[in-house]
Amino acid sequence: MKLLLLGFGTVGQGLAELLINKETELRKGYGLDIQVVGISDMLKGSLHNPKGIDLRAALDLAKAGKMISELPGAFDGDALAMIEQCEADMMVEATYTDIKTGEPATSHIRTALEKGMHVTTTNKGPTALYFQELNDLARSQGVEFLYEGTVMSGSPMLNLARETLAACTISEVKGILNGTTNYILTRMEEGMGYEDALKRAQELGYAEAVPDADVLGWDALAKVTIIANAMFGVKAKPDDFPCQGITEITAEAIADAKARGKRYKLIGKVWREGNLVKASVAPEEVDLSHPLAGVMGGTNAITFTTDILGDVTIVGPGAGRAETGYSALMDIIHAGGKR
Amino acid sequence: MKLLLLGFGTVGQGLAELLINKETELRKGYGLDIQVVGISDMLKGSLHNPKGIDLRAALDLAKAGKMISELPGAFDGDALAMIEQCEADMMVEATYTDIKTGEPATSHIRTALEKGMHVTTTNKGPTALYFQELNDLARSQGVEFLYEGTVMSGSPMLNLARETLAACTISEVKGILNGTTNYILTRMEEGMGYEDALKRAQELGYAEAVPDADVLGWDALAKVTIIANAMFGVKAKPDDFPCQGITEITAEAIADAKARGKRYKLIGKVWREGNLVKASVAPEEVDLSHPLAGVMGGTNAITFTTDILGDVTIVGPGAGRAETGYSALMDIIHAGGKR
Repeated sequence: MKLLLLGFGTVGQGLAELLINKETELRKGYGLDIQVVGISDMLKGSLHNPKGIDLRAALDLAKAGKMISELPGAFDGDALAMIEQCEADMMVEATYTDIKTGEPATSHIRTALEKGMHVTTTNKGPTALYFQELNDLARSQGVEFLYEGTVMSGSPMLNLARETLAACTISEVKGILNGTTNYILTRMEEGMGYEDALKRAQELGYAEAVPDADVLGWDALAKVTIIANAMFGVKAKPDDFPCQGITEITAEAIADAKARGKRYKLIGKVWREGNLVKASVAPEEVDLSHPLAGVMGGTNAITFTTDILGDVTIVGPGAGRAETGYSALMDIIHAGGKR
Repeated sequence: MKLLLLGFGTVGQGLAELLINKETELRKGYGLDIQVVGISDMLKGSLHNPKGIDLRAALDLAKAGKMISELPGAFDGDALAMIEQCEADMMVEATYTDIKTGEPATSHIRTALEKGMHVTTTNKGPTALYFQELNDLARSQGVEFLYEGTVMSGSPMLNLARETLAACTISEVKGILNGTTNYILTRMEEGMGYEDALKRAQELGYAEAVPDADVLGWDALAKVTIIANAMFGVKAKPDDFPCQGITEITAEAIADAKARGKRYKLIGKVWREGNLVKASVAPEEVDLSHPLAGVMGGTNAITFTTDILGDVTIVGPGAGRAETGYSALMDIIHAGGKR
């Protein structure tokens, strides 16, 4: 399989490391012999080498803060030119996320699908905003459009729903989809004020300097929208659903909930109500006996409510270099692996 | 696909209901057109009908306490004779569990595999005692030997490990594998004594009149042994591992743990230590911040510790008619379904 990587930041590098470290398992377990034939990165330079890029060398350069285009096959076109020219079987779209416009990632994905490439993306922008269009395009082209990393990063929630809950009817999906706000709420329950907890999250690198996308619930809303489109078959955009963040929760409200055996969590959920599919992001008091209540710090979790099994919950990482890279690797195996 | 059901109790009937209720999904989603051509049950009678048994009628008779052999195709041989004569593609072994000898289920499975049938079982006896032999036999015959229902009933933990954590290396699997003891510990933490909590569990049908298999840890030990064999590749039997139940935990110990922010759980685990694979069942103090700590009552849960994702936990039902039937259905789809 010939692979094109768009974006060589955290996710792209995390995936490159896995491709090196898991080479034997991929070949033996799935018959997958993977060559990266193109890397396009706005800051680190671009490479096109039909014989396969030396990933170890590219990683070493990127870590040293150097341009990867020092290696053989320097390419001076942009990402779209790369997609057109590099004859890849699958593209990994891991450029920066713009959850307002979805660009430039949406254009990258559209072009790759039109060229007949499978696509996996870890990018919430295009997946939340243009899910049905991209999914339909992939079907009409006979290729896969995959996006495991967009919701719970490496924790395989979409895979779990697709592969192992497949014969169940799922009536509700609800979860803790944003690690930053969960970390802040955990610290606040321990007695820290909102501002201090946010500052601590920023110091640890969990929260951005401008934390709006996390604390106002937009990140969780994008994920909720992906779930609504991918698992409930609606054609919805983030603006279609109500969204409330954690900025108005007071330390008093958290202490009061705790005294009543409850815990505040920022809950994103999608559920059926008659023939309608509804979705929301809002802080909710979760009973301490619910599996989501015990999910603390930066961890993510999702509960599926099903007709046959009742509730099934998956708890796992919601971010991280290797973790998000793993989600792309799972999608690559899904698209091209043989058992 | 022609199916043979051995045992028409809770699991067999739960599966039969799913085969009726999910008929359309199975055909459309997986290209599976399933006919049950044989049912063998020691108490309810046996049927062999190559044209397909009327499952609705068989369920109605079983629920009314009547013999299913009132229907066309009454068969008066035993289970082994049925396996020999009914030309099925796959056998569902759901007769009673004997975790000391594994019989008669082991003989049923061996015979079916030798006849070239796929086998799914929800029976811990043969799977814990003879895993490697049965697995090797299935491989040499080119058929599947599947056993999703033996560990967490319908919660798809083996499926999760096989399908979605496949590219990870798993270094430890640990979990709450027995709902009865978890229910008793939950009640004890609320202040009930051991004897009262056990009696309550018996009244609710969670615990047997002779509760040894649960409270002494044998049920969890059988599951741990299945995990060690299936996921860690050892050739082990239950007696190879230390096993301690919950009968010696006092209310004082539970209260003391609670005061220190810990919670007693009966933990079954399998882990690598250098080149060795170790396993055990024993009560452990679990930190309240661990996802397993929040698993209360009859629910089961398993945490996989992986090289790439760190900890991933699945929480779900550990028993139930439809739930266990679902595990067999998942295995049937795995063996015969097309995507």
